Amino acid sequence: MKRIKYVDQAQIISELKRPSYDYSKIEKIVSPILEKVKRGGDKALKKFALEYDHVELDDLWVDPSEIASASTKVDEPLKNAIQVAKDNIWKFHAAQAQEPLEMEVMPGIHCMRRSVAIEKVGLYVPGGTAPLFSTVLMLGIPAIIAGCREIILASPTNQIGEINPIVLYTANLLGITKILKLGGAQAIAAMAYGTESVTKVDKIFGPGNQYVTVAKQMVSRDTVAIDMPAGPSEVMVVVDKKTNPDFAAADLLSQAEHGVDSQVIVVSQSAKMLDEIEASITKLLPRLPRRNIAEKALLASVSVLVESEAQIIATINTYSPEHLIISTDNPDTLIPSIHNAGSVFIGAFTPESMGDYASGTNHTLPTNGWANAYSGVSLDSFVKKITYQKVTKKGLINLGPAVELMAAAEQLEAHKLAVSLRLEYLKK
Amino acid sequence: MKRIKYVDQAQIISELKRPSYDYSKIEKIVSPILEKVKRGGDKALKKFALEYDHVELDDLWVDPSEIASASTKVDEPLKNAIQVAKDNIWKFHAAQAQEPLEMEVMPGIHCMRRSVAIEKVGLYVPGGTAPLFSTVLMLGIPAIIAGCREIILASPTNQIGEINPIVLYTANLLGITKILKLGGAQAIAAMAYGTESVTKVDKIFGPGNQYVTVAKQMVSRDTVAIDMPAGPSEVMVVVDKKTNPDFAAADLLSQAEHGVDSQVIVVSQSAKMLDEIEASITKLLPRLPRRNIAEKALLASVSVLVESEAQIIATINTYSPEHLIISTDNPDTLIPSIHNAGSVFIGAFTPESMGDYASGTNHTLPTNGWANAYSGVSLDSFVKKITYQKVTKKGLINLGPAVELMAAAEQLEAHKLAVSLRLEYLKK
Repeated sequence: MKRIKYVDQAQIISELKRPSYDYSKIEKIVSPILEKVKRGGDKALKKFALEYDHVELDDLWVDPSEIASASTKVDEPLKNAIQVAKDNIWKFHAAQAQEPLEMEVMPGIHCMRRSVAIEKVGLYVPGGTAPLFSTVLMLGIPAIIAGCREIILASPTNQIGEINPIVLYTANLLGITKILKLGGAQAIAAMAYGTESVTKVDKIFGPGNQYVTVAKQMVSRDTVAIDMPAGPSEVMVVVDKKTNPDFAAADLLSQAEHGVDSQVIVVSQSAKMLDEIEASITKLLPRLPRRNIAEKALLASVSVLVESEAQIIATINTYSPEHLIISTDNPDTLIPSIHNAGSVFIGAFTPESMGDYASGTNHTLPTNGWANAYSGVSLDSFVKKITYQKVTKKGLINLGPAVELMAAAEQLEAHKLAVSLRLEYLKK
Repeated sequence: MKRIKYVDQAQIISELKRPSYDYSKIEKIVSPILEKVKRGGDKALKKFALEYDHVELDDLWVDPSEIASASTKVDEPLKNAIQVAKDNIWKFHAAQAQEPLEMEVMPGIHCMRRSVAIEKVGLYVPGGTAPLFSTVLMLGIPAIIAGCREIILASPTNQIGEINPIVLYTANLLGITKILKLGGAQAIAAMAYGTESVTKVDKIFGPGNQYVTVAKQMVSRDTVAIDMPAGPSEVMVVVDKKTNPDFAAADLLSQAEHGVDSQVIVVSQSAKMLDEIEASITKLLPRLPRRNIAEKALLASVSVLVESEAQIIATINTYSPEHLIISTDNPDTLIPSIHNAGSVFIGAFTPESMGDYASGTNHTLPTNGWANAYSGVSLDSFVKKITYQKVTKKGLINLGPAVELMAAAEQLEAHKLAVSLRLEYLKK
């Protein structure tokens, strides 16, 4: 880990700069994939499955028999764990529901706002080395609570055309049974444009590799909404001299094992603790199957030595971390000063893993500094809020003249006329 | 107006298709502007002001003396009207504030979520033929209620370097005094990247021409968040045989006068009423100073003749209008079935103008069909929601084993280790 000493915010911006990617190269690969799916539909999708996933698909959709047999392949303890996680995530997301807002802002002027489910959503669940069934929970639960009418899940298969059984089991546990055997940019294209067998959705959610990320970004320009812009995962851990260095080391490693471009940062007033944590990382690394990935990520990681709590806060808010672990003796004192972070893990016994899987918060969070303006996925992500207004005759008499004046000042005479004609009618 | 008879949703999608733009040409113009501002800072901005707005600016920022003198140029009745609008918009947006959510989802697992203001926001207010001070209210009020610490407003000047006094007056009324004399893509670039005198913001809001729209879209890929994707404004008006045709005609015209690409649609079961409305449009058109614009917009507008309430609902939800006016005898019955719309205007005495200026709802709304997934600007747009979790020792003992199982199943051993080391510690 590289060690730096805090100087000022500009230095933090520069030293903790995220890697930047030249997406234009990837766009050139993704663009024809999008185009081919748009034009070729299901046939193009099957061709891509053969080309990229090396699988010949008769049907793009998972069959009910596959879902049924998946359940037999997941052992009971894991089923129970998934159930516990589901319950917690469900409770915390259900509590995010907002009652309709209704008010009479002045006599005769009634304004309302209510949350309405986005009708059709697509959830992307990456395949690859590990079955990310936790992502099924994190995206599927709020979609169901919101009341989305059509929920499609897409995930790549192995070479014999199977999606991981834990992913299928978890989807089915939530009642999600429209499951597409598709990965990559072609899966995003299918859900964005629709095909003979795939409904075009209104919003696409979920993590993925660079092709998926770029495909989502491209279709979001003119076709569908997406959950948020994506980037490599990241954690910032704040420690003091009382922190258990093994805990902090494990937290840093659990971010580092995600990918070689994971961002891992530790901040402290104690140089001694930073040393101890680095020693602990060296000690723990050999225990990890994904050691090679973690080691590479650690090469780009940084420990920041600060001199005050104010510098800790400045470092956090300037970096704007996706995950923030405050593993200090008195973590709560920092909370009110934290303005930029995706999700915050408070205290020695709250590793990021808890939120990644089961505490109840969502693990789909803004990366790449976007936590300064974006929220993580929540129930809000699956609804839009429609406003309504109803003006009574009395309300129009009260407020209409002000609107006439304002419309005239903006030189929008028809806007004024729409009020004037009604006021004239009421005077008759 | 073109008249069509409802067949099915596919026909509605095709007949009410929005105009599509080839933004790649505009990107080629905007891209070097962004690049020049990024590199050249204030100097580049002054050069663009000279080149595009034909004004030589000593200072990019509005001086306090200009704000003071602006107030003397706005007459009292308009000031009073702006105050009334401000009060209504303030009330409805303040009521959108959400209390922090705190819950113990299972023993020892505490989850929280709270809204935190986005620190730095940039509000773009177009110049051009009319002073859009209503946009100052619609963007400035929720920014202030949210508690954004830095609020920058940018608006182009006339050729002698002045921003319209009503815009300055309205901004100052809200307490917004950091006002940039800049329009176009260069204004967006200044706020997105920052310069010597302009703070880089976290999120940019506001309408604009195609250059502004494309600039916002481009900087949103990797630099700042934006309020929403933009497109030409649009209204759908639902009428029945009892509608006052002059009211409906004025509502359609008040959309048509916005621009030649405005979308104007009227839906009814009554062919007779559609005829009457068209006659009324012809009658009212000569009264409008922006008649030429409105006439061009009407060329592309459509009236939809339907046979049932179900077809009305299908037309609304398929088109997903920015503004929806329900000017029928019994408008409330339709409300529960409306899933896709930006803002809804209910009943004969609720023209769109009321919401455009003063009813309290926001007039910055999703266009181009985005109402199927996006909400209009609201207090939510100026905050992000940070989640927090705190796990007690007991909580870790309760939930940790489930997390260990799930992490192991996802082959993320360090995630498991972060829990295991803590559980081992607690067993000692």
